[in-house]
Formats: sequence, structure tokens, C-alpha cells
Amino acid sequence: MSVMLNRQIVLTRRPVGVPQPEHFELQCHPLPALGEGEMLIENHYLSVDPAQRGYVNDENNYAPPLPLGAVMRAMAVGRVLASRHADYAVGDYWYGWFGWQDYCIATPAALLRRVDPQQAPLSTGAGLLGINGLTAYLALHDIGRPQPGETVLVSAAAGAVGSIVGQLARQAGARPVAIVGSAEKGRRCVEDYGYEAWLDYHQPIEAALRDTCPRGIDVFFDNTGGDISDAVLRQMALFGRIIQCGTLATASWLPAPQGPRAEREILTRRLRIEGFVIFDHQRRFDATAARLAALLAAGQLRYAEDISEDLAQAPQALVDVYAGRNRGKRLIRLR
Amino acid sequence: MSVMLNRQIVLTRRPVGVPQPEHFELQCHPLPALGEGEMLIENHYLSVDPAQRGYVNDENNYAPPLPLGAVMRAMAVGRVLASRHADYAVGDYWYGWFGWQDYCIATPAALLRRVDPQQAPLSTGAGLLGINGLTAYLALHDIGRPQPGETVLVSAAAGAVGSIVGQLARQAGARPVAIVGSAEKGRRCVEDYGYEAWLDYHQPIEAALRDTCPRGIDVFFDNTGGDISDAVLRQMALFGRIIQCGTLATASWLPAPQGPRAEREILTRRLRIEGFVIFDHQRRFDATAARLAALLAAGQLRYAEDISEDLAQAPQALVDVYAGRNRGKRLIRLR
Repeated sequence: MSVMLNRQIVLTRRPVGVPQPEHFELQCHPLPALGEGEMLIENHYLSVDPAQRGYVNDENNYAPPLPLGAVMRAMAVGRVLASRHADYAVGDYWYGWFGWQDYCIATPAALLRRVDPQQAPLSTGAGLLGINGLTAYLALHDIGRPQPGETVLVSAAAGAVGSIVGQLARQAGARPVAIVGSAEKGRRCVEDYGYEAWLDYHQPIEAALRDTCPRGIDVFFDNTGGDISDAVLRQMALFGRIIQCGTLATASWLPAPQGPRAEREILTRRLRIEGFVIFDHQRRFDATAARLAALLAAGQLRYAEDISEDLAQAPQALVDVYAGRNRGKRLIRLR
Repeated sequence: MSVMLNRQIVLTRRPVGVPQPEHFELQCHPLPALGEGEMLIENHYLSVDPAQRGYVNDENNYAPPLPLGAVMRAMAVGRVLASRHADYAVGDYWYGWFGWQDYCIATPAALLRRVDPQQAPLSTGAGLLGINGLTAYLALHDIGRPQPGETVLVSAAAGAVGSIVGQLARQAGARPVAIVGSAEKGRRCVEDYGYEAWLDYHQPIEAALRDTCPRGIDVFFDNTGGDISDAVLRQMALFGRIIQCGTLATASWLPAPQGPRAEREILTRRLRIEGFVIFDHQRRFDATAARLAALLAAGQLRYAEDISEDLAQAPQALVDVYAGRNRGKRLIRLR
């Protein structure tokens, strides 16, 4: 068997804050032979996710930081090219921790969910039916529990998670309101993603919140934190629920930036704030993805993908996501 | 019927932060005649509670601020001296919103719970079986849900709520740890209130937390907020629960003081933070008080009361509670 070459995006410098292209190198290495119990995965769609910032920063997170010299940790959808594990068949598609590279030698621990290309377009395995849609569905329903008529406010509402949250909240009979960074995104939220209203966080947000959420905010699906959250907290309704799903607004947590203390608002409004990490819920991925796929097949769910094809551009794509320059789920298609 | 005189502590100036004696006046007024549907209550024990700060400050709270010229809003245990309401019998004891005064003319809305002097000493109606014990029990079990072996950290642990939380957490099989303001309080927590360890927040708290809570903190029963909470947040265990029960550490919320942002800790540690206000749970008061009284009768619960007898000293007593100078539940006995 001839030696296969594998292009990889390798972390070569430790970033503080959002990783930049200069923290990575595109390298090319021969693939080692497959060991017992391993699979060779051919990557089709690489995922670009805000959470990747946390994978490379040496700061408090839910996973240890990626070591220098390692392939960038990333989710992807790929196909099993070869298998030395009886439980995993050649030809199957999987969603898993395959990294920003052409090929991945994976053990079962890296495989999150088998992707059925008949269920939905293959790319959705890394977005709508991947961590983004799964997060939207599970965090909204587990923590947010929107009731009919309630106001559900979503930050980064036009993003890969927020665009799904709006539609699901609307289906639950709630009134979704979008926080976005531009009028163009706001319009997309209302036209495509089920939102009833939107506001631009570059404008004075307190007044805009009072206008769009006159009875207060029952559920805040928070993908940003920061100044936006501060303002929202003060307009939460009694017994409101806050889903802490992301912290896009804060570039670095070393040290933690200052903000107004929240204890008094939490107490007097009886708020519940809860952190959500999708990987805690892996056993529910299949059932939840099936529900999302059924909504998609019934024409009740829209999604947007922002796909490019150059592996070398993956680091820049992550910078763009942090800058809000993506239009929907950011993916790199390799084949 | 001769005119009865009523001594009252009246709010005469609007405080910012903790109210001081100069914000009040002791006044004496004749009692008006009892209207249809009203009861005349003779106060026996007046309650002194940190929450009273919030009643008089003109800042965000769960009740509108007390108007100037009004009797200080306060809980008390009193006896029905006269009744013009068929459902309320003369001679019965009640716990309710009777204010810092000798007598209160009350409607049913002011009455929270009938107190049975056979169930437990009358004074406990305003403390252990009043909002303090009820808060300890319901907030700990509803939000904290301590599991056997878990670490339950409590701020203001020697106070009227904290002293009960320690004992209840111990009974649930958890490991209660006290945060207090002095070694003397710490010793009391361990000797009397079921705590396994204590730390003084005047000492460097991060290191003390690591020593006393080496596996992290599963439940934080937070009566203080402020710097203490900031340090605790960073040593919470995964899936930890924080009960936001009080904000003793912050004297004024206008404007909200700054502190390190919590979003990243909440997210990465999957914390749940929830505000607790006891008055949301009024329908469970009787059943919960009965459980606490049964524990008391069985010798499984200790409580401390710090009782004085001078109505005029009530404002100073509140200052003392904020300064941590009370030893147990602060009460004013009037008869």
C-alpha cells in the first residue's frame, strides 16, 4: 500500500483570546498504519466552531488545552475508509472529533454519531444535526422550557445555534426576539428563522429591549455574555431562565473581565442561570437529530451554511466567525 | 373602650445601603378602631432580618420600597387581641407582616402562618419555624439538592439561616463547610450546627477553600455574594448548584458594584445559579414548619436566638446583623 499524505492544520503557537492564522501551520505528513481497533476516516466537512477558541487557550475550560504541535481539535463529518474494529463498517459516515485535516485515524472514543446521508444532506451532520442544532434543541427545551406566549431572547441569533433556536421557540408557541450585529442579519432572523423582532447590539440596547420585550424576558438563550447579558439581566421577567451557552463577546478570560454584579438581580427576580455544554448529552444525540431531521423533512426548519473549500483557510474562518462575518454554519468542504 | 397607644418604629429618612438608626424615629400613636375584616394583633416577638434593608431602599427589589412615614416593615409573632373577621379567632398566635410596633391592625393578607405555642417555643415562630428555617429547608432541598458525600458550602453560616442549613445538609449525608467572620463563629458552626469545617473570609479565601473543599464545592448556599462568591465560583465542582439567597456582602446596589464576570465559569462548569425568595413558597410553610418542629422535638436540631427587649433598639439591631454582631436569630421581645 502506498503511503497516503495527510494535510493538517497544526497548532504551533499558543494564542491568548481568539486564535489567529499565525498560531497555526498547514503541514503535510504521511499517514501511519492503522492499529488494531482503529478506523481511517476520510473527512468530508470540517466544522468551524466558536468553542474552538477554548480548546487552544490555556485557560479554564471543559477540556484540557490542545498541546502545541497537535492537529487542531475540531468536529467533522467523515467516511470510514478502512476499519480494524469489528463494530465500525467501511463506508459509513460519522460525526466526530476528526480534526482539521484530510484524514483522521480514530478510535471509537472520537466517534459521536453515525450520520445517515439519506436522513438529510451530509453537511447537516456537522451543523443542524451536529452540535449546533443539538445544542439549540436540548438547551432550549431542557433549561429554557419556553411556554406559549413567553418571550425568548437569543443573542448571536443569526448564528449556527441561534438560527435554530428562533424556529424551535416559535414552534413552542413562544415569541422569539433576536439580538444581532447588523440589520441584514436581523432581517434574516425575521424572514428565515422564526423571529418576531430583532435588535442590533451596536445600538443602545436597554431601550431596544424595552421596545421589543415590553413584558420582560422569560428565557434568554445567551451565546455572547458580556455587555449584552448585563443589559438583558436587568430586564428579565420574574422566574426567568438564562441559558449560558456561549461567551462570544469576551475575547479573553485571563483574567476574567469585570462587569456589574448579578447577585441582586438573580435573587430579586428569582432567575435561574445554567451553563450548557452539548457533550454532556451524547446519549440523546441520535433521538434529537432524528427529531430535527423530521422537522427539516416536513419543511418546518430552515438552516444556512457558509461553506468554503480551502483547508488552509480554516483558521481565518474561525476569526471570521468571531467577527460575525459568517452567514450560517461555517464549514470547510474537503470533497 | 379607652384609647390604646401604639409605639412604632417609623421610617423617616430614605437610606442608601444599610439603614441606620437615624433613618427611623420611635413614635407613639393612638390605635384606630378596628374595621370590618380586621384583626388587632399584639406583637410578642419582632424579627430583625437582613432582607429589611431591601424594604427601605429605593432600588430594585422584590417588593416596592416602604414609603417614608410608614411603620418599618417587619415580620413578627403576635396574638390576636380582637377580631372582626370570622375566620380568625381571638387568642390565636400568628406569624405575619406586623411591623416594628407594639400592635398591628392586620387584614388576612398580613398573616402568613398560624403559630402553635405547643409545637415549639413561641419565639421560634419568627426564626427556626419562620422565614429563616423555612428558607434553609426549602432552598437547600429545592435548589441545592445535596447528595450524600457532596460538599455544601454556606456563607454567613452562623446566621439565622446558615446555622440551620449546616444541620440539614449534614442530615442529608452531605459535608457542610462554613464561611464565617470569626473563629468564635466557626467553632460554633462545628460544635453546634453540624459543620465539618469552617473558614474565615477575612483570611485569603482561595487557599482556605482548597483546603476545606479539596474536591470542589457541589452546593453553595450563598447568603452574601460579593468577593466571597467570586472566589467560590472558581472552585465549584462540575454541575454545582448555587443558591442565591442573600447579598449581605454588598451594602448598596445603586449602582451595581463591579466584579469578575461569571459567564465562563457558569458555562464550563455547567453551574446552575438560582435566586430564592421564601415568600414564593407560602403554601408550603405549614408542612415545612411541621418537619422542622419534629426535628427539634426529636433533639435533631439546634437553634440560637439573640433576643433583646427594647423596641427603640430595633434599628441598631439591624445594623448589628449586617455587621455580623448577632449570635443567632435576632429578635426583639415585647412581652
